[in-house]
Amino acid sequence: MEQHDAVEVIIAKRDGGRLSDSQIDWVIDAYTRGEVAEEQMSALAMAILLNGMDRGEIARWTDAMIASGERMDFSSLSRPTVDKHSTGGVGDKITLPLAPLVAACGVAVPQLSGRGLGHTGGTLDKLESIPGWRASLSNEEMLAQLESVGAVVCAAGAGLAPADKKLYALRDVTGTVEAIPLIASSIMSKKIAEGTGSLVLDVKVGTGAFMKDLARARELAETMVALGTDAGLPTVALLTDMSTPLGLAAGNALEVAESVDVLAGGGPSDVVELTLALAGEMLLGAGVDDVDPADRLADGSAMDAWRAMIRAQGGDPEAALPVARESHVVAAPTSGVLTRLDAMAVGLAAWRLGAGRARKEDPVQAGAGVVWHARPGDTVTAGQPLLTLHSDDPDRFDRAVATLDGGFDIAAPDTAYSPSSLVLDRID
Amino acid sequence: MEQHDAVEVIIAKRDGGRLSDSQIDWVIDAYTRGEVAEEQMSALAMAILLNGMDRGEIARWTDAMIASGERMDFSSLSRPTVDKHSTGGVGDKITLPLAPLVAACGVAVPQLSGRGLGHTGGTLDKLESIPGWRASLSNEEMLAQLESVGAVVCAAGAGLAPADKKLYALRDVTGTVEAIPLIASSIMSKKIAEGTGSLVLDVKVGTGAFMKDLARARELAETMVALGTDAGLPTVALLTDMSTPLGLAAGNALEVAESVDVLAGGGPSDVVELTLALAGEMLLGAGVDDVDPADRLADGSAMDAWRAMIRAQGGDPEAALPVARESHVVAAPTSGVLTRLDAMAVGLAAWRLGAGRARKEDPVQAGAGVVWHARPGDTVTAGQPLLTLHSDDPDRFDRAVATLDGGFDIAAPDTAYSPSSLVLDRID
Repeated sequence: MEQHDAVEVIIAKRDGGRLSDSQIDWVIDAYTRGEVAEEQMSALAMAILLNGMDRGEIARWTDAMIASGERMDFSSLSRPTVDKHSTGGVGDKITLPLAPLVAACGVAVPQLSGRGLGHTGGTLDKLESIPGWRASLSNEEMLAQLESVGAVVCAAGAGLAPADKKLYALRDVTGTVEAIPLIASSIMSKKIAEGTGSLVLDVKVGTGAFMKDLARARELAETMVALGTDAGLPTVALLTDMSTPLGLAAGNALEVAESVDVLAGGGPSDVVELTLALAGEMLLGAGVDDVDPADRLADGSAMDAWRAMIRAQGGDPEAALPVARESHVVAAPTSGVLTRLDAMAVGLAAWRLGAGRARKEDPVQAGAGVVWHARPGDTVTAGQPLLTLHSDDPDRFDRAVATLDGGFDIAAPDTAYSPSSLVLDRID
Repeated sequence: MEQHDAVEVIIAKRDGGRLSDSQIDWVIDAYTRGEVAEEQMSALAMAILLNGMDRGEIARWTDAMIASGERMDFSSLSRPTVDKHSTGGVGDKITLPLAPLVAACGVAVPQLSGRGLGHTGGTLDKLESIPGWRASLSNEEMLAQLESVGAVVCAAGAGLAPADKKLYALRDVTGTVEAIPLIASSIMSKKIAEGTGSLVLDVKVGTGAFMKDLARARELAETMVALGTDAGLPTVALLTDMSTPLGLAAGNALEVAESVDVLAGGGPSDVVELTLALAGEMLLGAGVDDVDPADRLADGSAMDAWRAMIRAQGGDPEAALPVARESHVVAAPTSGVLTRLDAMAVGLAAWRLGAGRARKEDPVQAGAGVVWHARPGDTVTAGQPLLTLHSDDPDRFDRAVATLDGGFDIAAPDTAYSPSSLVLDRID
């Protein structure tokens, strides 16, 4: 590998230039080895955020992050594999019903997930609210479970794209999360290294998402689809709304309970709609066109796959879920039509109630979170419970209530409300 | 002090906003205390470099860096004080003859200097080539020497603007040196904290300087003059040419020898010209208008002050200066008129010969450097020595010769050459 100098690479990007393949390969490798220091990579990340990278640079950056670690291989499995990744939203528990549902349709789902940081919850945090369930599996355990159960949701091992792990933690504390080249390469390096046969991306748009507007979300989606396609990983992206939180609950155990409702054939209509839309895309990606996922929800086979998946990782799917010690009701201040419930406000409130963490090493509360009793378009009556806040720590209620102030609008009764679409666009 | 969050401050500047006084005060204080991490400050420095700061932000940033440490006070001295700061150039030994010359004119010169990093030499490195001379003085020793001798060149103590010390070292390794707000606040925070009565800035312009063009050099000079004036420190700046190296030598002992030549009434005409121009500005700043510094060079009193200054810090002004073990001559390839000798090429060559350091902890060679035997405008003959390279390590010659390739132009004999001005502008 050609030798470079960190300052040379930083200055090239700082001054608006294009990084060469050799510079990218070197800087990722040297950063992984600790030769490029954290403070050098953060300056480079800021320069990338402000000056951008072209598609070729992003592809090379992604390849270099993949090359920093091991690659997994699912080709020994008897069934095709497909993974789903969401860029993160509030109340976004879709992975929980989706993975067993797709497994029940005959396609294996290897989901390497993360823990939550900030206002969006982490899939592993949610599953860890199930008594006994553990997130860490060896590669061999993961393969065996994919073959036997068809679905695994587990923590990514340390061997996969270690450069991305370091860089992700760094970006989080240096204000450099919101760079499309860095978001796209972070997600796609892990998914390509993971070895899934195809990939469906759920790119969130709206107040509760990293991408606040459709144009930037589309740019991110197009960038990731191109990266996947160029790497031989068939990838499709749905752009979906995240101005309103998904379902009726945000929090760890609260979202598990809602997911089980969906697997039982019930649950909030938007969660069901998005689960089925993503399942359809995943089956398409895996080349399975003779199964209707709605049937698998209805006939209980998705629920069977869920139970098997939880049990395989030590969890008890029949055990009662943790409940927060305290709760606090926010009543509707007026009567009328709920026309807006802001995803960011709900997400921050859930986070402040203890469902999320401010630092990587913080614990989360299994029972904490927010339940909302009305969705936009519903009619509410003054004094009725609008939201219920849950936390083990009643001191947290005041701040959560303040966070929700201005987070919803109630219009005059009989105000016309036209719901927006959940799936906004499809990129392939 | 109001509490802030590093990511909040970084994102404010990243997104093109203005930092509040409270944000600036907090981030500098928290960085000095280690609460804001190096990787966070480097991301902020890159955002400042790319998105800028307005005059008010720069003034507050400077004040916060001053407030991070102690302030010195020279008001007990029997004579006025004036300092000079150069933004750094190749062969720029001006401080060496200038400080004793101004002292000989009755004005005290407290020069807190630095060591060299990169292609421009450091004043302390140069003086340390004098046997016995030491750079470290206590504040009390410095005051006593200012009173008795009138001139001190020494290392800045750790107590002065510690935030700037940390930040300067960080910028050096993160590609964030070239930000005018950061350069201006770094220089002016130290000079204001130092407590000098007035200040003359020598802002270098050209290939061998940080500022390559006149517009950016003028912006830097105006920013610094405004910072000084607003802080009650009368400040004037000269913009001076640094496309050609100063004098006839770049290197540590080599530049001391040339400085002694100037103090003896000889020396290269450009070094004499700039020394007298800066001395004139310094005397003006100190309110001394009845002394002609040229007289003090001619009558030997500047040389007396030099000897006293060197002796006061343990040096032997009569001792032989170190000489490099090896030398290598670069001959003129053709006959004609030398029309260009590039300051950056000469500076990099001297650096690579051992006169400078690549890392803070590297030693420098006292005898290493470059001597040029012709200046632009001079006629040279093919085969005559054009440059002599000096190093203790003959392995370094090849790389230095390669660095000088393309670093000079020789035009046909009798080509007209019009010398450019040394002092390009004056800002007050």
